[in-house]
Amino acid sequence: MSTTAPQGFRAAGVAAGLKSSGAPDVALVVNDGPGDAAAAVFTTNRFPAAPVQWSRQVLSTGRLRAVVLNSGGANACTGPEGFGDTHATAEHVAQQLGTGAVDVAVASTGLIGVRLPMEKLTAGVTAAAEALSADGGDDAARAIMTTDSVPKTTVQARDGWTVGGMAKGAGMLAPSLATMLVVLTTDAVVDAGTLQSALKAATAVSFERVDSDGCLSTNDTVLVLASGASGVSPSAEEVTEALTAAATDLAMQLLADAEGSTKDIAITVRGAATVEDALTAGRACARNNLLKTALFGNDPNWGRVLAAIGTTDAAFEPDRVDVTINGVTVCRGGAIGDPREGVDLTGRAITIDVDLRAGDEQATIWTNDLSLAYVHENSAYST
Amino acid sequence: MSTTAPQGFRAAGVAAGLKSSGAPDVALVVNDGPGDAAAAVFTTNRFPAAPVQWSRQVLSTGRLRAVVLNSGGANACTGPEGFGDTHATAEHVAQQLGTGAVDVAVASTGLIGVRLPMEKLTAGVTAAAEALSADGGDDAARAIMTTDSVPKTTVQARDGWTVGGMAKGAGMLAPSLATMLVVLTTDAVVDAGTLQSALKAATAVSFERVDSDGCLSTNDTVLVLASGASGVSPSAEEVTEALTAAATDLAMQLLADAEGSTKDIAITVRGAATVEDALTAGRACARNNLLKTALFGNDPNWGRVLAAIGTTDAAFEPDRVDVTINGVTVCRGGAIGDPREGVDLTGRAITIDVDLRAGDEQATIWTNDLSLAYVHENSAYST
Repeated sequence: MSTTAPQGFRAAGVAAGLKSSGAPDVALVVNDGPGDAAAAVFTTNRFPAAPVQWSRQVLSTGRLRAVVLNSGGANACTGPEGFGDTHATAEHVAQQLGTGAVDVAVASTGLIGVRLPMEKLTAGVTAAAEALSADGGDDAARAIMTTDSVPKTTVQARDGWTVGGMAKGAGMLAPSLATMLVVLTTDAVVDAGTLQSALKAATAVSFERVDSDGCLSTNDTVLVLASGASGVSPSAEEVTEALTAAATDLAMQLLADAEGSTKDIAITVRGAATVEDALTAGRACARNNLLKTALFGNDPNWGRVLAAIGTTDAAFEPDRVDVTINGVTVCRGGAIGDPREGVDLTGRAITIDVDLRAGDEQATIWTNDLSLAYVHENSAYST
Repeated sequence: MSTTAPQGFRAAGVAAGLKSSGAPDVALVVNDGPGDAAAAVFTTNRFPAAPVQWSRQVLSTGRLRAVVLNSGGANACTGPEGFGDTHATAEHVAQQLGTGAVDVAVASTGLIGVRLPMEKLTAGVTAAAEALSADGGDDAARAIMTTDSVPKTTVQARDGWTVGGMAKGAGMLAPSLATMLVVLTTDAVVDAGTLQSALKAATAVSFERVDSDGCLSTNDTVLVLASGASGVSPSAEEVTEALTAAATDLAMQLLADAEGSTKDIAITVRGAATVEDALTAGRACARNNLLKTALFGNDPNWGRVLAAIGTTDAAFEPDRVDVTINGVTVCRGGAIGDPREGVDLTGRAITIDVDLRAGDEQATIWTNDLSLAYVHENSAYST
């Protein structure tokens, strides 16, 4: 049910011909209220795509009636003309819904540096508006897929209220989001300020800790819309908990479907002086191509874990660091531990546990291996 | 002639059985004087290998009689025992040469986290000492190869004096060096302080600007030994120029032979407010897996160039940035420029020119593509 699981929402997904495959490529999610609070988190890339620039302005009001999303083109680095295309898309959605463009967020994904075919997109928006339905969430989730092999959706039912959501983004995941579009919905009664704080807290421990290939996209967008249709007013803590559960569920689905990946790798850095240190050390591992290729090859090459964290400024003494891979402590005190032959890496799930022995904090970063298929998919992407 | 091109040096390379292939794996370079000034630059990784820890101490005197190098084992993350192995190796070299261990630097390369087979290594050192000759430079260069497909050597003849050198390091190149071992020699008369300054300046614009896969090794070492045997005393500027020429020649050879690479990519960032900004932006491109896979696929995906520099804090206005790939300005003012179809990427050499239009500084970073063969070689490395 995805984004239409909570009360007060309709959605649709249609094929507008933006994708040469003919697969669905335009999605629309509408909040029928009575509330219209909304919040968002966007990419920090300094080349934000036109839809990100537009939606950031729109969200400054803390209100939203609808979100239109398209795959088949990122509308990034397309200049003032591209921004005009986004504006026109929002206007067209607004006309269809009898509202103003300022109530409509836009999100796009696909190749950078190419203008969108506006005639097709506009026709698609019209068709999506006509197809809107209270069980259209799954169609919408399918229409935002790019190289995703499956749609990603979540439903988190709470006491009389619900959070729903959809996400797309296979590969290109990186901290501060990814080429990742996420729409969360809830029928809780919640104000925009609480919603923004809750969303920020939820993304910080979910999407922002998935670092599949270290590349920060121009289009990353996470939106949340609250209809208030349940009549239930949960506390700020309860909203944060439910959004975090939804975001984490979607983040793990993105990880499992990352482009060409054969491993899901959870890197937990414990014994850190600060959470920031743990994140820094974890990310250094997640971005180390030599470690990621070794894991693709089922090689528990712990030297590459140390070499990676050895490039950081995290607090630790090199001769006190332990590394445990899938339960085997292959490195003890920065030197040789138990035999690496004891590590079984044949499954998809890999856990790397680094103990810095420098404090009591910890954090987990999730990443994937660097596989032959990753290179193949990303070298053939635009050709 | 490599390290034995300048007067006053002997070298050798022998097979000690450290490599299962039976290829040469122990090299020895000896400075017969009359001078013994020396200087070095080491990895900044916080897990320096035992030979790096040893050599850093030895070099604090600014003097060196000999360097012993082995492939077939990095002796990194091997604890106090590993340091003892390095010490013993230096002692054995010193005995063979009738000098002290403090006059002997050690460098190692190979798998991390494995002890060296000391019996084989010691026998190899004895054999190398017996094989020392004034034309042994090429044998030494061959003995330090790991996944290198060719030995890398250089000779820079100046007015009555010469700089020679050898290097190993296919792939794993990163700023602040790489898994890269380099020995430079010169018969110029030069003091240790001048030599250190000149080496630092030379590496800063050569090895430190090659960023093949962004991974910083535990073993990187660049050494220079001066025999003074020519009797010529060049100026500090002349020494710096010749060392820079030698280092740049070797760096370009390393780039051309990087593991599994199919492209040599020169990323020049110009119009930068500072050289540091230019380097930051260039490195962000060199470390972007999506850009590197696109180039492997002959895809002039300039959006990934912008997405990469958009993650940095370099000074620029996004709507003023131009990107030119192999002579075609595919991005103008942060938006669509000339047709990408005009870019020919079929050759090995690729130039990416980014104009930030924010100042007058510039710098070039060299990298390679991310290829199927890179993943294959690095996933199969230790198995």
